[in-house]
Amino acid sequence: MSQESRFLTLLRLLANDPAAQGLMDDVAILPVGDTRLILTSDTMVEGVHYLPTDPPADIGWKLAAVNLSDLAAKGARPVGCLLNYALSGDEDWDAAFIAGLGEALDRHAMPLLGGDTVAMPPASARSYSLTAIGEATGPIPTRKGAQPGDILYVTGPVGDAGIGLDLARADAAASGPLVDAYRRPRPRLAEGALLAPHASAMMDLSDGLLIDTQRMGQASGVAIIIDHIPLSPALEKARGASTAVQIAAARAGDDYELLFTMPRGLAPPVRAIPVGRVSAGAGLTLMIDGAIVPLPDRLGWEHG
Amino acid sequence: MSQESRFLTLLRLLANDPAAQGLMDDVAILPVGDTRLILTSDTMVEGVHYLPTDPPADIGWKLAAVNLSDLAAKGARPVGCLLNYALSGDEDWDAAFIAGLGEALDRHAMPLLGGDTVAMPPASARSYSLTAIGEATGPIPTRKGAQPGDILYVTGPVGDAGIGLDLARADAAASGPLVDAYRRPRPRLAEGALLAPHASAMMDLSDGLLIDTQRMGQASGVAIIIDHIPLSPALEKARGASTAVQIAAARAGDDYELLFTMPRGLAPPVRAIPVGRVSAGAGLTLMIDGAIVPLPDRLGWEHG
Repeated sequence: MSQESRFLTLLRLLANDPAAQGLMDDVAILPVGDTRLILTSDTMVEGVHYLPTDPPADIGWKLAAVNLSDLAAKGARPVGCLLNYALSGDEDWDAAFIAGLGEALDRHAMPLLGGDTVAMPPASARSYSLTAIGEATGPIPTRKGAQPGDILYVTGPVGDAGIGLDLARADAAASGPLVDAYRRPRPRLAEGALLAPHASAMMDLSDGLLIDTQRMGQASGVAIIIDHIPLSPALEKARGASTAVQIAAARAGDDYELLFTMPRGLAPPVRAIPVGRVSAGAGLTLMIDGAIVPLPDRLGWEHG
Repeated sequence: MSQESRFLTLLRLLANDPAAQGLMDDVAILPVGDTRLILTSDTMVEGVHYLPTDPPADIGWKLAAVNLSDLAAKGARPVGCLLNYALSGDEDWDAAFIAGLGEALDRHAMPLLGGDTVAMPPASARSYSLTAIGEATGPIPTRKGAQPGDILYVTGPVGDAGIGLDLARADAAASGPLVDAYRRPRPRLAEGALLAPHASAMMDLSDGLLIDTQRMGQASGVAIIIDHIPLSPALEKARGASTAVQIAAARAGDDYELLFTMPRGLAPPVRAIPVGRVSAGAGLTLMIDGAIVPLPDRLGWEHG
């Protein structure tokens, strides 16, 4: 049990309000009158969630995007957000961060409502938090609803951001679609709102296809077989499509596509790629080119 | 203009939703159906907002208390909060922090609904944010409503926390009411709810009586004369009540009493100490023992 897991156990004892959902989901659901608010908060730490060499505008964009992605997975409409910002000591850097954050917020009609700005001691890693509030537009999907017979889908290819991170780590000036996938993820808000009334289960792909699918299967009490790992043309061009590359793509985090299930025979209302199927039982199975492949030791990004 | 002031200017360009109130208040006010939500977020940084030697339970308590104090100043009822937590690497420390946080949340009926937990790089200062959501219970006072003829009040003595910080800095094992005032501030939620319908202006005293009164006067477009600096028996016993001690108390932050104005002739519905009066004009005047005293160069805690 990781340090974070033990800590979460403590937090769950405290978070006993129904809106907290036992801290088992990525969001809280708070009823206010006839409205159901969706609450989420994500922190990005220098050297942990982004590279110190990443452009500040991209770090600001990504902080907005990862929070918006949590709202997308609930089919929620953005309502407002609060920013906790650690000054860098470099005004141009701070201005670029806010420009990138603002670009992502504007693009997704997410108002900035407040927050707090602090100075950190010198030489300290900086961290940024955004707390995002959304409003449910209809049924709120969870990761718990996958049913035997459902098909598992993603809204786009996986693994680009993982390769993009490798490229950016090797060369801070690297560019192209893979680096963009890592630095400028696109939250699937429109897709999420269209999918929410139809998906039996839904979550965003933040930690990797394998580990997030495993979590969905565990939460739903079902077995899931992944039988297709969709790669982008850019990824295939850079790395090919060997079994090792496919497994690496399925373990890579930061994709922020939506992962969802729908009953077989229903067509998803958005562009989506079938990647597997749900059956009775338990456990995650990975098939590549029609053959079962042993799961890697580490399925994806595990926090803490 | 401080680094934080310049940064806030940038943020204000982005935060153009009416709910953000131009980032000129401590909170955002978000209408949701017939409900007005009060949103606030405060970050505490190791070595900046608390001492690394402060007991973790007290740091957790204080993080809850400073956010609850912002709700108190709006007369708001706590609805829920989200925590952004940086793991310490020491499970006992983390458990004690959460125990102290939980004690403050439980005492004020504030549910913990979610958040995010991260690991920081080694040797990095840690920081914690809490985003608090409250619900307005009636009229929402701001710092802008003070009128000529009003009396200025505080809900308790000032300066205890400032002396407590000095004592804790000199000796981490120091204890007593002054250290408690610094480490375990009490948010005035009950007082805030009772005062909100009657106060012409209200805010919490986070940065010091002088600077916060100056802000209220500027926001309201009035002159304010402070003619009394209320000291606690514990402070007088420790430091006496000289003019220098009174000025130091009026410059000290972290009191978290409520500062409010009401028309002369009305009696506040809670225990409150008159400390000054509002008149037409502009500017802050300090009188001690009936004589005008020059304002100190630094009026209180200024961020950034």
